[in-house]
Amino acid sequence: VSGGPVDLTLCETPALVLDRTRLQANLAAMAGRAARLDVALRPHLKTAKSPDVAALAAPIAGGRITVSTLREAEAFARLGYRDILYAVAISPDKVGRVAALLRDDVLLTVLVESAQGAAALALAAADQQVVVPVMIEVDSDGHRAGLAPEDPDLLVVARTLAEGPWTRLEGVLAHAGSSYDCRSLDAITAVAERERARAVEAARRIREAGLDVPQVSVGSTPTALMAANLDGVTELRAGVYMFFDLVMAGLGVCRLEDIALTVLTSVIGHQASSGAVIVDAGWMALSRDRGTANQAVDQGYGVVCDLAGRPIGDLLVGSTNQEHGLLARRDGGRLDPAEFPIGRRLRILPNHACAAGAQHDGYLVTEGTSSQVLARWPRFRGW
Amino acid sequence: VSGGPVDLTLCETPALVLDRTRLQANLAAMAGRAARLDVALRPHLKTAKSPDVAALAAPIAGGRITVSTLREAEAFARLGYRDILYAVAISPDKVGRVAALLRDDVLLTVLVESAQGAAALALAAADQQVVVPVMIEVDSDGHRAGLAPEDPDLLVVARTLAEGPWTRLEGVLAHAGSSYDCRSLDAITAVAERERARAVEAARRIREAGLDVPQVSVGSTPTALMAANLDGVTELRAGVYMFFDLVMAGLGVCRLEDIALTVLTSVIGHQASSGAVIVDAGWMALSRDRGTANQAVDQGYGVVCDLAGRPIGDLLVGSTNQEHGLLARRDGGRLDPAEFPIGRRLRILPNHACAAGAQHDGYLVTEGTSSQVLARWPRFRGW
Repeated sequence: VSGGPVDLTLCETPALVLDRTRLQANLAAMAGRAARLDVALRPHLKTAKSPDVAALAAPIAGGRITVSTLREAEAFARLGYRDILYAVAISPDKVGRVAALLRDDVLLTVLVESAQGAAALALAAADQQVVVPVMIEVDSDGHRAGLAPEDPDLLVVARTLAEGPWTRLEGVLAHAGSSYDCRSLDAITAVAERERARAVEAARRIREAGLDVPQVSVGSTPTALMAANLDGVTELRAGVYMFFDLVMAGLGVCRLEDIALTVLTSVIGHQASSGAVIVDAGWMALSRDRGTANQAVDQGYGVVCDLAGRPIGDLLVGSTNQEHGLLARRDGGRLDPAEFPIGRRLRILPNHACAAGAQHDGYLVTEGTSSQVLARWPRFRGW
Repeated sequence: VSGGPVDLTLCETPALVLDRTRLQANLAAMAGRAARLDVALRPHLKTAKSPDVAALAAPIAGGRITVSTLREAEAFARLGYRDILYAVAISPDKVGRVAALLRDDVLLTVLVESAQGAAALALAAADQQVVVPVMIEVDSDGHRAGLAPEDPDLLVVARTLAEGPWTRLEGVLAHAGSSYDCRSLDAITAVAERERARAVEAARRIREAGLDVPQVSVGSTPTALMAANLDGVTELRAGVYMFFDLVMAGLGVCRLEDIALTVLTSVIGHQASSGAVIVDAGWMALSRDRGTANQAVDQGYGVVCDLAGRPIGDLLVGSTNQEHGLLARRDGGRLDPAEFPIGRRLRILPNHACAAGAQHDGYLVTEGTSSQVLARWPRFRGW
């Protein structure tokens, strides 16, 4: 920041704030967990979409990363990352961009989830005359995509990829997205064990057919944090753990005070009829995500904190318009306008870090309870 | 587009598509309505955030526009717009940017919604030594912000703004956001009449106190379309009518075939267990908006259309992950994978045009049922 650190009270609102102290603690905790579980960590950068966060989460030289778009893959490749997993099933029209990265000596691994997908990829890779490394998506919970380990197509796909001239079978991958819907930590541990066991079983069946399966990749932030063991797994993927959010706190896998991401906002008015306070963070700044709506505690559009990042009583963002947020007490009680004068700055803990982050072009970086802005880190977006 | 028109089948996905034929029909219909109601139209550009759309919706010379952020105000001022209403209550820290535009001969009108807000603005305007034109927000439905016409503070605020040296009272403004929650067209007409009557009543009371009220501004897309008359009103504001969306169709103020905005997507897989088709438009491309969830017909995350923009049977985006959409039939029936081969392009009608648009950096512009891309129009964002 030119001219020395500025304070959050002087920044334009709404804006995204990242507490580097919490970020680094979250990164260290997950790195320690992967080490104890004896697996490689492949951080997912779909949440952060930030070169600066990536540099803290994974070393550029030798680091493994996961991405959710080719835009991310291209951006991180330009920064020097050489081992990138694109963890969304590939469609054939995207193989041209994949091939361009492979020709640039980026080990970009793609994902297929069906025999039709494997056949389409094999054709597109042949067109490009580039050998494409591929993981097979294993469905462990019916939540998204992939083949069940017992599906006869699993071996069809494995053979297509392992034996075809333009694909190379790198391994199997499972993502237990249903971990987000669990109602207890024990339930998450059970989902994690199923994610592990189904991925390992898929690898076993493919190996039994005489094919090589170097990687067995699993993960979601909840299962990564709650897995009892990862026997047979080689790598762990997770993304939202870097920042955490209210959905993760509602699941019980983090505390509110671990959440590194907030949205800075200013009071712009007061609703006389309801006693609500109006702020300039609406759904455009917070996202429309209502991921806590089905949890035990519905956090509305976010938990309201003071400028130091400490929650204020039971204050929530109760509702939003595009550029308006209405703050309300959980018990429905009126707020005292004198405590929330027009212009007062507040910070909102978001429901979902991936969604709230995506509404902004960068981070104001702070440390701990200080409101000094130490850096501005850009974000990118798009596909 | 360099090298002549390309086809949507060759464009990267996901991407935002704008049908210019429908856009122009929607613009013409609202312009005609404003003329018949004998009010000036002040289009709201918070939905489009696009210079190209703005140029069709309002003439640069002499055109009135509405914006939801100072970023929009600054962007449209650079393009030559000179009469801009920033229709979100102003906080004092934003007055520096307002003053910069006013010094540049942009008639930028701001909004206050309380006595505290008027006092804070008067102080900040004095600091800037610039006379700031102001509207007073009138609360017609308890939905968002503003003063009720009978609130004694209305006259306090009007006097503060009219008599202070650094503010000028431009008028009163009402926005009946509750029109989005109506269950019938008659209910919208009633909300529109209340929006009109409350704004006119506020103006009458201020005028009775001897003050000038040049503008009486009302609007939301549903009330703009359903108002029986706008007697006493001088200008009409609306934004989403340019594109329309599933929420507006659910309210009955447009048809599906009026919706000008879609998200282009590619099939990337099939979920064997459920019979769902997986596409590469997740919530990142569609937004998390679920505005039809409380309507008579819940449209999930969007209605699925073919490449010409025609809805396919009863096909919806039933659920989303960040970069995955799962297509499902409304009746729960399985989809035939052969009809949806990997790589097939589809278009999704979004719940909420403002939210879906904000997830993208530009529009692929088409006309009618043609899939030729005639132009690429950029969007901007941020605050």
